[in-house]
Amino acid sequence: MGELSTMFAPDRVAVIGATEREGSVGRAITSNLATDFEGEVVPVNPTAETVLGFECYAEVGAVPGDIDVAVVVVPGDIAVEAVADCGETGIENVVVITAGFSEAGSEGASRERRLRDVAAEYDLNVVGPNSLGIMSTGVNMNATFGPENAQPGSISFMSQSGAFITAVLDWANDRDVGFQDVVSLGNKAVLDEGDFIAEWGDDPDTDVILAYLEGIEDGSRFIRTAREVTQDTPIVMVKSGRTEAGASAAASHTGTMAGSERAYEAGLEQAGAIRVDNVQELFDFAGILEGQPLPDGDSVAIVTNAGGPGVMTTDAIGDSDLSLASFTDNTLSALSDALPDGANIYNPIDVIGDADVDRFAEAIDVTLADPNVGAAIVMACPTATLSFEALAEVTVELQAEHGKPVAASLMGGDSTRDAQATLSEHGIPTYFDPARAVRSLDALRNYREIQARTYAEPTEFDVDRERAREVLDDAKRRNTTRLGVEAMDLLEAYGIPIPDGEIVDGPGDAETAAERVAGDGEGVVMKIVSPDILHKSDIGGVEIGVPVSEVADTYEDLVTRARNYQSDATILGVQIQETLDLDDATETIVGMNRDPQFGPLLLFGLGGIFVEVLEDTTVRVAPVSEPEAREMVDDIESAPLLRGARGREPVDEAGVVETIQRLSQLVTDFPAILELDINPLVATPDGVSAVDVRLTIDQEQL
Amino acid sequence: MGELSTMFAPDRVAVIGATEREGSVGRAITSNLATDFEGEVVPVNPTAETVLGFECYAEVGAVPGDIDVAVVVVPGDIAVEAVADCGETGIENVVVITAGFSEAGSEGASRERRLRDVAAEYDLNVVGPNSLGIMSTGVNMNATFGPENAQPGSISFMSQSGAFITAVLDWANDRDVGFQDVVSLGNKAVLDEGDFIAEWGDDPDTDVILAYLEGIEDGSRFIRTAREVTQDTPIVMVKSGRTEAGASAAASHTGTMAGSERAYEAGLEQAGAIRVDNVQELFDFAGILEGQPLPDGDSVAIVTNAGGPGVMTTDAIGDSDLSLASFTDNTLSALSDALPDGANIYNPIDVIGDADVDRFAEAIDVTLADPNVGAAIVMACPTATLSFEALAEVTVELQAEHGKPVAASLMGGDSTRDAQATLSEHGIPTYFDPARAVRSLDALRNYREIQARTYAEPTEFDVDRERAREVLDDAKRRNTTRLGVEAMDLLEAYGIPIPDGEIVDGPGDAETAAERVAGDGEGVVMKIVSPDILHKSDIGGVEIGVPVSEVADTYEDLVTRARNYQSDATILGVQIQETLDLDDATETIVGMNRDPQFGPLLLFGLGGIFVEVLEDTTVRVAPVSEPEAREMVDDIESAPLLRGARGREPVDEAGVVETIQRLSQLVTDFPAILELDINPLVATPDGVSAVDVRLTIDQEQL
Repeated sequence: MGELSTMFAPDRVAVIGATEREGSVGRAITSNLATDFEGEVVPVNPTAETVLGFECYAEVGAVPGDIDVAVVVVPGDIAVEAVADCGETGIENVVVITAGFSEAGSEGASRERRLRDVAAEYDLNVVGPNSLGIMSTGVNMNATFGPENAQPGSISFMSQSGAFITAVLDWANDRDVGFQDVVSLGNKAVLDEGDFIAEWGDDPDTDVILAYLEGIEDGSRFIRTAREVTQDTPIVMVKSGRTEAGASAAASHTGTMAGSERAYEAGLEQAGAIRVDNVQELFDFAGILEGQPLPDGDSVAIVTNAGGPGVMTTDAIGDSDLSLASFTDNTLSALSDALPDGANIYNPIDVIGDADVDRFAEAIDVTLADPNVGAAIVMACPTATLSFEALAEVTVELQAEHGKPVAASLMGGDSTRDAQATLSEHGIPTYFDPARAVRSLDALRNYREIQARTYAEPTEFDVDRERAREVLDDAKRRNTTRLGVEAMDLLEAYGIPIPDGEIVDGPGDAETAAERVAGDGEGVVMKIVSPDILHKSDIGGVEIGVPVSEVADTYEDLVTRARNYQSDATILGVQIQETLDLDDATETIVGMNRDPQFGPLLLFGLGGIFVEVLEDTTVRVAPVSEPEAREMVDDIESAPLLRGARGREPVDEAGVVETIQRLSQLVTDFPAILELDINPLVATPDGVSAVDVRLTIDQEQL
Repeated sequence: MGELSTMFAPDRVAVIGATEREGSVGRAITSNLATDFEGEVVPVNPTAETVLGFECYAEVGAVPGDIDVAVVVVPGDIAVEAVADCGETGIENVVVITAGFSEAGSEGASRERRLRDVAAEYDLNVVGPNSLGIMSTGVNMNATFGPENAQPGSISFMSQSGAFITAVLDWANDRDVGFQDVVSLGNKAVLDEGDFIAEWGDDPDTDVILAYLEGIEDGSRFIRTAREVTQDTPIVMVKSGRTEAGASAAASHTGTMAGSERAYEAGLEQAGAIRVDNVQELFDFAGILEGQPLPDGDSVAIVTNAGGPGVMTTDAIGDSDLSLASFTDNTLSALSDALPDGANIYNPIDVIGDADVDRFAEAIDVTLADPNVGAAIVMACPTATLSFEALAEVTVELQAEHGKPVAASLMGGDSTRDAQATLSEHGIPTYFDPARAVRSLDALRNYREIQARTYAEPTEFDVDRERAREVLDDAKRRNTTRLGVEAMDLLEAYGIPIPDGEIVDGPGDAETAAERVAGDGEGVVMKIVSPDILHKSDIGGVEIGVPVSEVADTYEDLVTRARNYQSDATILGVQIQETLDLDDATETIVGMNRDPQFGPLLLFGLGGIFVEVLEDTTVRVAPVSEPEAREMVDDIESAPLLRGARGREPVDEAGVVETIQRLSQLVTDFPAILELDINPLVATPDGVSAVDVRLTIDQEQL
């Protein structure tokens, strides 16, 4: 592929399908380009001599000189050919506006496959198809057929909904919110969110990346790219289809395949993207990230002229991950000198109702100078003594002087208009509702933490990959896709501790094995081994505490029960397992399934009621590093039970963490493993042990 | 007290302390009244002949004829006297603007006590002190010193923060949001939120009650009043100081005593008040409750011209307690006829980007006619074919025609301005962010459910109140405030099942008792009984499974251990208790403590890790009815464990519910019980049993 950056800084843009026909998309795009674009507009249409005054070419191959971007608006049946022509001519960037691709039935889908093939053949950057187009204010390019151009700014914005772009531009232009680049992703046949995130991460003119997405094409690539990009550039996004109803609406809208919401939640968090739930937060967060510096710490000072709203602001801080700053003695004494009796010098600072702008300014100044203060909220109610406009001016000055982030809540209507404009112009957001100011500052805090992340590499354990492969190959030979305890070797090959035991296929061998593993005579655990019997306990396929003397008889019983349950069941034998001391043990579950977008998704939780009743589990996209595996254990609410709650001895938490990592390595190494559950992984103070395992494999991937 | 309604519909208002002095509160109030008030303004001031052209009287007693409301603005040292003069003259309603009362130290607090005494003596309705004043647009009365008067409307609004009122009016006047009455509550020395809720509940001109409160004075009265009022009039409120930081800010602001947030949460929910967390929701919810009818059901239809924003709206519905409507076949076929190919006739309906207002209108019309549709959201992005203004007009028409609630999301900026005005004028809220439209509709649903509530009376069980009183009196005689198992009789007197057992004070009696309770020889439970030993198990003060033969020796051991632990401990004896079969048992906790505002607060949860680690508990203000007690059991996440999760036999849930109710009756009957915990209340399939109890009493209340 060519440099994507050329797409947003072209000298010459061709419109293939340009026309003067009123109401047509071809006219809208040519006209939008004609209005502002600093470069040259080149219409292509075999039936016109000129379009809107520009010389028109019959075909793209006939255009002299280089074309940087071609915008394709010709009908669907010739659109792919038009793109191929572009490739033939050496054009690297193509925006396909034309609809009627995968969003429109099977014929469209096959057209889209051809588009993708052409793009691959010519190594093209293709936006769309079914796109509204692209914009870049750096060269005043509006290559969309929407009604409005963007104002310049440092936010770059992509959207899987073209209509949302027109809505946002209408709204943003009304509020003087500007953009660097805007992309309507369309069907994402070739270029997807990952490409634009990478491009904008490298773009010095983009300070914030904004996205409306209904799906992510390649989750693990997205994570990799986003982790890098968010070291410098925040990504704020709506990933819609969060809820069941929303996901099915998204599927019918763009044909986006619904991945699991838990995978998106985990994957986006691991990627360092700031995910928001609604449009208001999307722009609130983008605005403050664009306009304000990052705070040094989490603590916020509130300066207000009204006690009640100060309390509401404090509540909002309590709801957030921010904290209320505690002032230094210097600050307190300076505030005490500056403020009258009845004022509150503790946070939230109340300069009280008769404050003028000077008193307000002094309090803000002293507060922002306090090393314990990371950010400040200036909030004011209308009073006879205060001019909102003057307050806005001193707030802008003091923010610049101290270099700490500030958000404002000017609680009024018309009287706040000019002050709002002044603050906005200098990147200080202001809202009637102080809770929005707090949430915006919290987004800065969040991004500061993301930026400070260091992503550890997943630990590479020394494992016996060949032995693991043999277990899977063996299943393939038996033509089975479901494996049970017969696959314990798989875990052992990857260094996951399992109880002593073996699988035997006769009563005599059972007794021999039992003698060996029983040790000092606590008896053994016996389980039927059959890929056809999923719920072994339910059919009486498990016996615990079997004395060695009864092992041979029990062997026969287990096999009989299995035969009674299903006469043609494949029976691989009976597993003889040592009896674990469960007195100080906690049962945990470590599992994995594959998400269509993000790939292997690891799950951790405590066994029994914690998973089944309380649903207290956590997930991560694999592979996970050691800190991520540790976080998984931290995440669950029942974690204290592993750590000695209620007077118990803490279990070997490091062993649990290592098991998660080793499973992560196993499922990353073998894409053939579709699902795997270690249930239970018994955790004791002395270590962990995988007592049972169940997995599903895809034979074709072996 | 006189009729509070006169306060909001006076013919004559006196301003005691009226003056022409520039910048004074007395002038501001007189001038605000002079501007609009339909009645007569009567200044009172011994040093003036006239004030702002009105004849001025030297004292309130000198004013001829009746005064309906007196507004007191004289200095603090003579304010109480001025109020007394009002009482003397027969004035029933007094608004005390003057500050310097309980918000200002101990001298102020004693002044406030005198004010309260005067109010009681003359049976006065007193607002304040430390109030911004009151407004009523019904008679155009602005008896505040704020800068703006309210516009007429049907929202009545009270606020514990005067500054918040000025902020809200500034904002509301800018948006043509109107009010019926506005009250700045000030210090609430006499009239509090309960009084105004009652008054506005009776006021036909008030459709919605709005409140900003930092505390509630009398929680149980508030619950009683609000339950009645919310049958007709919704109450939407911010109760600030929700978070720890917020509560301490509130305490320093108004001296509001921080009750427990859990009590507020439970109490306000039980009261039927709609509590919101922030200012935006306060006015969003008030607006839709004022402007739209209540829906018949929970299901919402979305009609949009843009798929992506439709998905976002669907997500917001997924986040709410609303559901996405499923259309009837009639609707689907009508939509199918009305809409072009490519449109989506399933919810969310996508009329697609080239829709004009007629297509949109037809879809809205068909949808609102569907009996499966309770409410609708009309959402649109800007397109070349659609006029927002025309869409607003048909939306208004169709909403009125079908009588179902509608909210709008017009996603744009300047282009939506006129349409917004049209919608607002007809009470249809519109927001850029569709999530706000959804949350507003959800508030309607919520209020519909509140309105439909029937509050059952608490069951009056036939109990032995005298026996319970004896247990408490006995503790008083022993001069103790803490009781343990020696108070099991208290539970038995109120019909709460307890294990068979008795308290004995010698080894011989112990053996006799053990013989009786042990039955078929499972042994007995023995516990030291001492008000001085809280954690009996920790000092070896509990033995379980003691065979009858060892009971006498164990008696001596227990007493010795207690003496060793604390030589001067009062030892009331040893409790001998039957051994319960705990095989199918679940330990629960039923407890109570007293909240300063709401009184007795009941707690329920499962014992052990569920309370200690997972904090899975629920609370209600007592007394609770049977449905409320049942809800408590439903509330906890671990409830399935009582109901046969994981193959266990369900416990006697009705017994648990009844125990909660009986405890409710006990703690309501005896205010002397400050705290009480039944821990554990063992629940088995065959019934419940209170195995241990601990309580704290206030001797002075006996």
